[in-house]
Amino acid sequence: MKTLKVIKIGGNIIDNEDALQTFLKEFSKIEGLKLLVHGGGKLATKLANQMQVEVKMIDGRRITDAETLDIITMVYAGKINKNIVAQLQANNCNAIGFSGADGNTIVSDKRPVKTIDYGFVGDVKQVNTKTLELLLENDATPVFCAITHDKNGQLLNTNADTIASELAISLSQIFKTELYYCFEKNGVLKDINDDHSVIESITSKSVQQLIDNQIISEGMLPKINNCMHAVNHNVQKVCIGKPEMLFDKNSTYTTISK
Amino acid sequence: MKTLKVIKIGGNIIDNEDALQTFLKEFSKIEGLKLLVHGGGKLATKLANQMQVEVKMIDGRRITDAETLDIITMVYAGKINKNIVAQLQANNCNAIGFSGADGNTIVSDKRPVKTIDYGFVGDVKQVNTKTLELLLENDATPVFCAITHDKNGQLLNTNADTIASELAISLSQIFKTELYYCFEKNGVLKDINDDHSVIESITSKSVQQLIDNQIISEGMLPKINNCMHAVNHNVQKVCIGKPEMLFDKNSTYTTISK
Repeated sequence: MKTLKVIKIGGNIIDNEDALQTFLKEFSKIEGLKLLVHGGGKLATKLANQMQVEVKMIDGRRITDAETLDIITMVYAGKINKNIVAQLQANNCNAIGFSGADGNTIVSDKRPVKTIDYGFVGDVKQVNTKTLELLLENDATPVFCAITHDKNGQLLNTNADTIASELAISLSQIFKTELYYCFEKNGVLKDINDDHSVIESITSKSVQQLIDNQIISEGMLPKINNCMHAVNHNVQKVCIGKPEMLFDKNSTYTTISK
Repeated sequence: MKTLKVIKIGGNIIDNEDALQTFLKEFSKIEGLKLLVHGGGKLATKLANQMQVEVKMIDGRRITDAETLDIITMVYAGKINKNIVAQLQANNCNAIGFSGADGNTIVSDKRPVKTIDYGFVGDVKQVNTKTLELLLENDATPVFCAITHDKNGQLLNTNADTIASELAISLSQIFKTELYYCFEKNGVLKDINDDHSVIESITSKSVQQLIDNQIISEGMLPKINNCMHAVNHNVQKVCIGKPEMLFDKNSTYTTISK
């Protein structure tokens, strides 16, 4: 079984042109099968402001109405995805851009309205790996933006961390899959103010205590839940840290395993 | 040798939501290998206005500066391409969106500055069919927007008619290729004001006389040049007409052959 690295990058890289360029250069050098998932960063909000479209928030969460979905589709699948693909090609990495609609790779359900109507937000229902397997086996590198579809013609906005973990889980049936979440910290920290206090290993056994002790809390909780979900569903290991974890053998980061 | 239909649609379909939906439904039913190329329509101008970005024209031709390229990338590769892909998937057509950067399929040269600097406009230099062949042989349908790249990380704006003919020419090495240009008229007309005066067959022999007699002129000239270029480079036939030519056996349209 070949090894596949599923790598997710977020706003801290995407919003910084130099950081993105450096990352993509290093990413291109990674040997073996790889797949990139990118978030959207601040560009969608910037475009919404420029278009004088109001950003709607309820309880601190963005609502994806039809106009916002258009903006997200333009920014994520258009501007960001195509520029990443072009830069990877310049580095001789044979990138191909994907939304979940392309090749019907990720089908999601529009989130049901309970107390809050999130609008055009999709929760992943099904991942179809056939096209991805075909391309990966032929030295191509899929590059995913965080957009899915409902198979009835509707595009949906889906969390990029979730897309990365669901892709990693489904592709683990075909490849030995590793999942890497790149973000702005060195990993899960014992002390949130000390970037050197990295917890290097977390397992399904140790995670509950870290949550109980509130070492893992707030923004870190959904990320860790995604990681645990992945390792509990056949992903070999999940790593969280700065992008350096992929390129620098001496870097410190958090590895999550079963 | 399998037959491949390369089909190009323009603004008259893309700008009309109902027409687009009907077209995509019919397109999905076309049997055999197929590839779709779409233009941009008026949406890019609409977004530019909304963003208060000035549309720069010289001698009636749009200039693609960096801001305009961003808008085109967002609208063509993002909004239009992904909505087409999602609608095709809803009709059980396994569509996958492409710009020329994806899979390094279309490499172009930034147009050299002579009297006019067109900005980020690319003239097609090279088409790489490997990824497209792989996908077509596996029942996928590539959907191209009119964006290419220079293989050095720069996206470029390229004429959609040209993309269609260059794809058809290169893919004719692998498939028996037919090229269909859908537009608002029934084909090349003897009398531009009479949509029933279709010239049903044009050959390399008869085309010069039609140009000399100014029956083919103005906007039709570059289109016909694209068609002649295609049939002179191994494309079996090129058809121009309303989309109905693809679905209705009784429709009248123009066929261009060698």
